[in-house]
Amino acid sequence: MAVTTQGTHLDPWQDAYAAKADNLRESEIRALFAVVSRPEVVSLAGGMPNITDLPLAELAASAQDLIRTHGTQALQYGSGQGWPDFLESIAEVMAAEGTIADPGNIAVTTGSQQAIDIMTQLFVDPGDIVLAESPSYVGALGVFAAQQAEVRHVPMDSDGLIPQALEEAIVTARKEGRAVKFLYTIPNFQNPCGMSMTIERRGEITEICRKHHLLIVEDNPYGLLGFDGQTYPALATLWPEGVVYLGSFSKIFAPGFRCGWVYAPASIRKKVVLALESAVLSPSMVGQMALHAYLRDYDWIGQIAAYRSMYRSRRDAMIQALNDYLPDASWNVPDGGFYTWVKAPEGINTKAMLPRAVAGLVAYTSGTAFYADGQGTDHMRLSFCYPPEDEIREGVRRIALVMNREREIHNIFED
Amino acid sequence: MAVTTQGTHLDPWQDAYAAKADNLRESEIRALFAVVSRPEVVSLAGGMPNITDLPLAELAASAQDLIRTHGTQALQYGSGQGWPDFLESIAEVMAAEGTIADPGNIAVTTGSQQAIDIMTQLFVDPGDIVLAESPSYVGALGVFAAQQAEVRHVPMDSDGLIPQALEEAIVTARKEGRAVKFLYTIPNFQNPCGMSMTIERRGEITEICRKHHLLIVEDNPYGLLGFDGQTYPALATLWPEGVVYLGSFSKIFAPGFRCGWVYAPASIRKKVVLALESAVLSPSMVGQMALHAYLRDYDWIGQIAAYRSMYRSRRDAMIQALNDYLPDASWNVPDGGFYTWVKAPEGINTKAMLPRAVAGLVAYTSGTAFYADGQGTDHMRLSFCYPPEDEIREGVRRIALVMNREREIHNIFED
Repeated sequence: MAVTTQGTHLDPWQDAYAAKADNLRESEIRALFAVVSRPEVVSLAGGMPNITDLPLAELAASAQDLIRTHGTQALQYGSGQGWPDFLESIAEVMAAEGTIADPGNIAVTTGSQQAIDIMTQLFVDPGDIVLAESPSYVGALGVFAAQQAEVRHVPMDSDGLIPQALEEAIVTARKEGRAVKFLYTIPNFQNPCGMSMTIERRGEITEICRKHHLLIVEDNPYGLLGFDGQTYPALATLWPEGVVYLGSFSKIFAPGFRCGWVYAPASIRKKVVLALESAVLSPSMVGQMALHAYLRDYDWIGQIAAYRSMYRSRRDAMIQALNDYLPDASWNVPDGGFYTWVKAPEGINTKAMLPRAVAGLVAYTSGTAFYADGQGTDHMRLSFCYPPEDEIREGVRRIALVMNREREIHNIFED
Repeated sequence: MAVTTQGTHLDPWQDAYAAKADNLRESEIRALFAVVSRPEVVSLAGGMPNITDLPLAELAASAQDLIRTHGTQALQYGSGQGWPDFLESIAEVMAAEGTIADPGNIAVTTGSQQAIDIMTQLFVDPGDIVLAESPSYVGALGVFAAQQAEVRHVPMDSDGLIPQALEEAIVTARKEGRAVKFLYTIPNFQNPCGMSMTIERRGEITEICRKHHLLIVEDNPYGLLGFDGQTYPALATLWPEGVVYLGSFSKIFAPGFRCGWVYAPASIRKKVVLALESAVLSPSMVGQMALHAYLRDYDWIGQIAAYRSMYRSRRDAMIQALNDYLPDASWNVPDGGFYTWVKAPEGINTKAMLPRAVAGLVAYTSGTAFYADGQGTDHMRLSFCYPPEDEIREGVRRIALVMNREREIHNIFED
């Protein structure tokens, strides 16, 4: 039986909602979710990791052992901050990237999305400003809108956020008498751009934020997915008092347990835990204990190395296909993560083209999803994380076909 | 290694928090969490279910099978509304209580706590009023405070909420020009009182809310735990257009997967899903699929019958101990759920006494936890859900000892 949602034209509770409920919008990516799952469509749209190579037999045996021997603990409530043993596992994962974290400064979240939501609720009053890269992660922009923040985008170049532009944004907003609450940044293999902040820039960015007393929210789901195994120092290591670091297992393991974390200065971490308890009482013990067992018993660093190699091949397939099929577009060549950021050829509006692309059996994410202000119609984000290499190539080929048709129509109407 | 939280006396970010961050407080129950886990303390404080009789071997085999055969689906992201197959399972659970729900009006939450949080965020602007029973669930009061609602308590008698008092509260608030956003009620085996709303009252309460166009949030974690197998019609069946129903697997199965649900009118459900996506992207697929398999493959109704019988025996042990050790206190005899609500003997302040009770190796929850306004020093909630019968009896005996000492001291200082 199909699950249907009853339609209503008149909502009798329309007058009862809070002001901020109006700001909830379906994201351009989520609106495509139904399309993505149709097998005939090649989706270069989502950020779903490819987890087909996980050791399912071993994970299955581990899950069985967990429930059989520790079931009454795994199926019970836990504490709001997370299970202490798991906090230590998380600290070990952070150490793999060079970040030395006290487990007592970590709290477990229901995916790192919840960490973004909680941080925004803790710091943002309606109308406050959040600074974010230009462009930035669609899911974070959705939270900022839902919590009534005003997002100001700070330009990037190939070295990451531009320090002078960041400083100008802070100074300008404060001159206007506005409260700027934090800088939200994805320094590693950024979503959607795929670029990383250089080490020099990391120093400059944290120095500017320190000077202007501006908190940094450092979102780092992809940091261990550098294709050459390269890692960068976390901003949190450069300025522990002023950076709240968000981590995730979704990309380095799998998303299904919905386990992420916050690593924060003690005073902030304390408030984060209270907010988490208010939101969900406690994170899933099953999820925490299963991940803890995986990290304890399995060569998770080897698994990440396998992921890197697999995603690198998919990146190569994507870049090759772009070269072959879209020679008049331009793009960066990411050296880690999931995404390529493509500038469409002159005259193409990626947002307007999307329905026709889907009709042409390919999906991507319009650049507009990654801006709070309607920019981005000249860009698209192409994900190489989920479909295999031949599908990536076929997807890019279909995009090229749709683009050619767009331009033919465009030329007809221009003539 | 013990996990410690670094202390800070000065928070350098004190000025940066949102206004509502000040409203986050550690609940009186959570403050006791560390104490509860000390084996020498008998805790009658928490609401942890007793899950020792769950069929762990079968659940373990089921988890193994799930990961082995559907691992790449279970470990992947899902959709924000929940997994369609699981929405149908939830509708079957609701049917066991006599509620016929369209799966398309259900959404999966990270425990029903998240449902309370999301509903409050969707409807409450700072300063808006929420009506709740007097007393009411501590975790909901925490959310209401965190989201800057003003709670007004509506008195109950042994039949549940008093209709006239509810109507007066609505009319009074609106005369004051205040926005009243919803009535939050736990109609079945209420937390903390253990009482249920009579069928007649259900009709009256929904009629009043309909007349005054006031939304009802019906929180129902204990509805299937009537000791005689008795169930009551959900308010949502009496007024589907005006009731948002919150369900939970924490008490009828186990809390570890953090799976609850919302059943709501279509227009509200749509906004709930958007808010859930903003908060956590999607609920855990592992949790949903594991619960779905449990409901599909196991005699879950038989398990609930076993829970009822076990909790009934514990209730009996609690009432017997109260009769034996606390003859000058008074209490109700709940016919379902987890809790007894005890009025302490004259002169006892349950909140003031709590630290001395803990020193006397017994914990309970002070009545003040269940009021937004400091009432409740003359009551305590005693849970009979978690400790076995002999410990329940020993716990009540220890409370009586502490109370006697309190009164001795009281008498000395009075003389």
